Amino acid sequence: MIQVGIIMGSNSDWPVMRHAAQFLKEFGVSFETRVVSAHRTPNLMFEYAETAHERGLKAIIAGAGGAAHLPGMVAAKTTVPVLGVPVPSKYLSGEDSLLSIVQMPKGVPVATFAIGEAGAANAALFAISMLAVENNELARKLVEFRLKQEQVVLAMDLPEIE
Amino acid sequence: MIQVGIIMGSNSDWPVMRHAAQFLKEFGVSFETRVVSAHRTPNLMFEYAETAHERGLKAIIAGAGGAAHLPGMVAAKTTVPVLGVPVPSKYLSGEDSLLSIVQMPKGVPVATFAIGEAGAANAALFAISMLAVENNELARKLVEFRLKQEQVVLAMDLPEIE
Amino acid sequence: MIQVGIIMGSNSDWPVMRHAAQFLKEFGVSFETRVVSAHRTPNLMFEYAETAHERGLKAIIAGAGGAAHLPGMVAAKTTVPVLGVPVPSKYLSGEDSLLSIVQMPKGVPVATFAIGEAGAANAALFAISMLAVENNELARKLVEFRLKQEQVVLAMDLPEIE
Amino acid sequence: MIQVGIIMGSNSDWPVMRHAAQFLKEFGVSFETRVVSAHRTPNLMFEYAETAHERGLKAIIAGAGGAAHLPGMVAAKTTVPVLGVPVPSKYLSGEDSLLSIVQMPKGVPVATFAIGEAGAANAALFAISMLAVENNELARKLVEFRLKQEQVVLAMDLPEIE
Amino acid sequence: MIQVGIIMGSNSDWPVMRHAAQFLKEFGVSFETRVVSAHRTPNLMFEYAETAHERGLKAIIAGAGGAAHLPGMVAAKTTVPVLGVPVPSKYLSGEDSLLSIVQMPKGVPVATFAIGEAGAANAALFAISMLAVENNELARKLVEFRLKQEQVVLAMDLPEIE
Amino acid sequence: MIQVGIIMGSNSDWPVMRHAAQFLKEFGVSFETRVVSAHRTPNLMFEYAETAHERGLKAIIAGAGGAAHLPGMVAAKTTVPVLGVPVPSKYLSGEDSLLSIVQMPKGVPVATFAIGEAGAANAALFAISMLAVENNELARKLVEFRLKQEQVVLAMDLPEIE
Amino acid sequence: MIQVGIIMGSNSDWPVMRHAAQFLKEFGVSFETRVVSAHRTPNLMFEYAETAHERGLKAIIAGAGGAAHLPGMVAAKTTVPVLGVPVPSKYLSGEDSLLSIVQMPKGVPVATFAIGEAGAANAALFAISMLAVENNELARKLVEFRLKQEQVVLAMDLPEIE
Amino acid sequence: MIQVGIIMGSNSDWPVMRHAAQFLKEFGVSFETRVVSAHRTPNLMFEYAETAHERGLKAIIAGAGGAAHLPGMVAAKTTVPVLGVPVPSKYLSGEDSLLSIVQMPKGVPVATFAIGEAGAANAALFAISMLAVENNELARKLVEFRLKQEQVVLAMDLPEIE
Repeated sequence: MIQVGIIMGSNSDWPVMRHAAQFLKEFGVSFETRVVSAHRTPNLMFEYAETAHERGLKAIIAGAGGAAHLPGMVAAKTTVPVLGVPVPSKYLSGEDSLLSIVQMPKGVPVATFAIGEAGAANAALFAISMLAVENNELARKLVEFRLKQEQVVLAMDLPEIE
Repeated sequence: MIQVGIIMGSNSDWPVMRHAAQFLKEFGVSFETRVVSAHRTPNLMFEYAETAHERGLKAIIAGAGGAAHLPGMVAAKTTVPVLGVPVPSKYLSGEDSLLSIVQMPKGVPVATFAIGEAGAANAALFAISMLAVENNELARKLVEFRLKQEQVVLAMDLPEIE
Repeated sequence: MIQVGIIMGSNSDWPVMRHAAQFLKEFGVSFETRVVSAHRTPNLMFEYAETAHERGLKAIIAGAGGAAHLPGMVAAKTTVPVLGVPVPSKYLSGEDSLLSIVQMPKGVPVATFAIGEAGAANAALFAISMLAVENNELARKLVEFRLKQEQVVLAMDLPEIE
Repeated sequence: MIQVGIIMGSNSDWPVMRHAAQFLKEFGVSFETRVVSAHRTPNLMFEYAETAHERGLKAIIAGAGGAAHLPGMVAAKTTVPVLGVPVPSKYLSGEDSLLSIVQMPKGVPVATFAIGEAGAANAALFAISMLAVENNELARKLVEFRLKQEQVVLAMDLPEIE
Repeated sequence: MIQVGIIMGSNSDWPVMRHAAQFLKEFGVSFETRVVSAHRTPNLMFEYAETAHERGLKAIIAGAGGAAHLPGMVAAKTTVPVLGVPVPSKYLSGEDSLLSIVQMPKGVPVATFAIGEAGAANAALFAISMLAVENNELARKLVEFRLKQEQVVLAMDLPEIE
Repeated sequence: MIQVGIIMGSNSDWPVMRHAAQFLKEFGVSFETRVVSAHRTPNLMFEYAETAHERGLKAIIAGAGGAAHLPGMVAAKTTVPVLGVPVPSKYLSGEDSLLSIVQMPKGVPVATFAIGEAGAANAALFAISMLAVENNELARKLVEFRLKQEQVVLAMDLPEIE
Repeated sequence: MIQVGIIMGSNSDWPVMRHAAQFLKEFGVSFETRVVSAHRTPNLMFEYAETAHERGLKAIIAGAGGAAHLPGMVAAKTTVPVLGVPVPSKYLSGEDSLLSIVQMPKGVPVATFAIGEAGAANAALFAISMLAVENNELARKLVEFRLKQEQVVLAMDLPEIE
Repeated sequence: MIQVGIIMGSNSDWPVMRHAAQFLKEFGVSFETRVVSAHRTPNLMFEYAETAHERGLKAIIAGAGGAAHLPGMVAAKTTVPVLGVPVPSKYLSGEDSLLSIVQMPKGVPVATFAIGEAGAANAALFAISMLAVENNELARKLVEFRLKQEQVVLAMDLPEIE
């Protein structure tokens, strides 16, 4: 059964959102990827959100840019946790995307992550940490990931100043 | 028949949005006011948008604050022109509301107006100017309004510096 | 008779503003394109605005960048609906253009759209939706456009993560 | 066993953070509240984070303002999901808090919510939705909450314009 | 003969703009004050600008807020030096006013000063310094003003810390 | 005798500031160009400012970027009108330069122009307009320049949409 | 001998800057407070900076608001470490002050602290930590201060939710 | 003995941070460079900070980008002066880094410098000026550096306008 849905407003968001997919794959979490546009396919969006719970999704990662309504509107239609990724916009560098996603009114939360690739990756890692609460295997992998990450930093060299 | 719908995410938006209602009333344009929340009543929002055309609405004025999704989502579900009013938000003064409304992606337009009262008033005046294209009486009133407005400015006095 | 005027402060704005022209052409709406500069040809601007109504224009799409005064000043001289497009500026990415256009004072509205190409395209689509209120053929085309747009998104594929 | 920890950098953050506590209480989720300062009690912060997992915490809600390091640093020391709430700052209205919390680098996620009270409330609701994935009773309550919230909006009246 | 014109879009701008008038009065520079609105009295604005040179004005101080078009449009219609004062706006604190005034395109300059009272005062002092280039008496007064200002600072006391 | 001084903090500012020089040359206004750094040559800066009046300078155009102190500090040391040009900065696009120049306190004005090339050009045109107040030949040239500029815009062509 | 100089552009900055004085007093570090304005008393500023070293000052804390040139210009005239405090400005909340102080060009550093009271306090604490490098007594007091500060946080209570 | 530690969150920060190393080398100040990540190696960070004093470090220069917690967290764990360098971030140009570093709460100071290379260079120069307070040789070199820097500017040529 698919555990996490990754959705985005357009396939042009893929270079950002694939960072979410890669981490889920790496951790062996089942997921699906779909283009679902808040503005161009609103009915699909509602249907996707409405059926998320019964389909067994445990988290939805939604990426969007500009007037980024996808994460918030999906959250309005489901109680499955929604994780929002602000996709960088052409002229405002994703500052508009960030505010459109994070500034949700009281009552309908969207967990928001950093603008761009880091945010997509972290949304996946956060979803994994949510699943890990009830999944020891995943919890173990997450600890390992952190250790490996630590090792990478510890092994980093800096050049000499000549 | 009602020509213009004024909707807003909460009755707390009324002190801003009533400026739209007042202008429509003053110009004798029939209108309705409704609380429709994108996040708390998404189904009502979709229904409102879907029936707008058949109910004969010629414009929808939608006010929202923060992650302001109401104008854009209504626009996604109808071809009736949608006019968005950024309602000031508590901490970011409506800058978030403005970006969430105006930065719509190509394909689904929302005509956006200034943050706050001025924006609400101007959304109404814009709706009136749209209707005036096919309504000479309204066109005449609009010209009169502009003239009166000009007179008000021309009559303004400035104090002496003592 | 020409229904929509597209004006801009310089021919260097054309790469942005042509997105408005393309949509109007696609929908079969008659339009004209003119370079009209608020600051360099103020008299032409006033004349353009003053004669817009008698020439039968039903909407004016005005693009401008930086201290973008064209949309607001045209709006000050006509009751024909004015649609403003913030053209990206060299150093501030159009944030200055956006604020200069959208923050109009109470009494003289400018319907504002997104910064850049998306905004130009949407201004045209909005003008079409205005005309469609009294034009069933156009209304039908607009619905078709939305459907086609929906199909495009529904047909989008996302690559596999390998 | 306590399921959710609510921590904040100072007791002056309480008027914001109590909105998180109130929702957890309302939903019957066990929680604790602690003042833990990243900068003034760094050792306590590390200890809190390090023991969070073994103490059975399933989510940590961390509020902080200005150079808001608490959520990110706790996240660096635990794999328990961390939810960050930007507390409004005196001069920059929480824009600094928001960026300090949301812009985490790839590898260490913090789920970020809106600035201020709405963000605190939504962090709690999000934590509840996480727990609800494995808790049907909580899931049912969340659906009820959403319905009640919808009813509140549907019952909102708007005054007449006289 | 009047040397400096002080204009503003509304009499509500007077609390800011009177700081310009006060300095001109203090220095004995003849001036007039007028409400001239770019958007509500565009014809008056053009007429004011067009006749400024023949009426002998040597500088025009123009204050405006929000989408502040007055200084730039006056500058477009006259070669008399135009000094722009960004009046604070209700929601964006004059940041919109500042950008709308200062970001003029190449070819039509507006000398811009600080947001609010300080800007209005400094526009007047700048106008005085312009006139002082050909007016020794005024130059002398300006030097005196600077000296007095220096004395004020030098005489400032700071309390003890107890 | 030199009438206008153009100064800048580094020769790396020249690509921006030469737009000021070019206009002064075109109008036949005598000028000098100097590298004067507020932070690296503070004594030269003070000396330049202190002797500006006696050397007959009628305006000083000062360009600076980042924490741009040159225009304001020169203004603090002379009553000769100072025109500030915000030079674009590497990371903040000149927003820092603009605020550092325009937000001068009451008492010491700096006339500020747009960020970058347009601002440099306009500072020169503004200086010319100041000189033109007492110089009919320059006034005539300025009117001609405006006319020529108008002609350029009027002659601009826009391509057809095919 | 005085070790630290606290200067500010006006006595109106005192409510912010006294937080620096209070900490220095508390730690027994000798200091002086002076009003020194970059723009209104530039000569005094230069003299203050030029003599700072020979007078034995080991740090200068300089507070300024708006186009805040005082810290950077003092730094340009002395090699004594300069600590800058952005004083909140009336309309831009000190964002202008911050950028004017922190964005110094390569070669002339100003150590910058937070906007307002916290920044003033921290500038003093930083000066103390600088002096503590060679002063064991001060180092000891600083450690104590940190411990006391930690105790204050550890003792903070949060109310119950009723 | 090493006097200054230069740390950064990743070796990708080196192109910015090497400007600090270069200046320290040029002045003959002993230093070390280390990759220390607040989020990926929090234990190393604490250990680094905790041992800084006993290892004789007299200043720590810490560079970080995005949600830049390294400087502030190191400062929380040591009384050795910490100098923060905002490393430019991919989408927000370092504005997030700057606010995350500079807006420290009262009690734990971080001396902050400009975004990017200039900031790294100036952090080093500031560290040198701190050491120079008790080191006449270094003080002399610093004066020489300033003189040389002044000479460089004085020798700068500007091209003729042809």
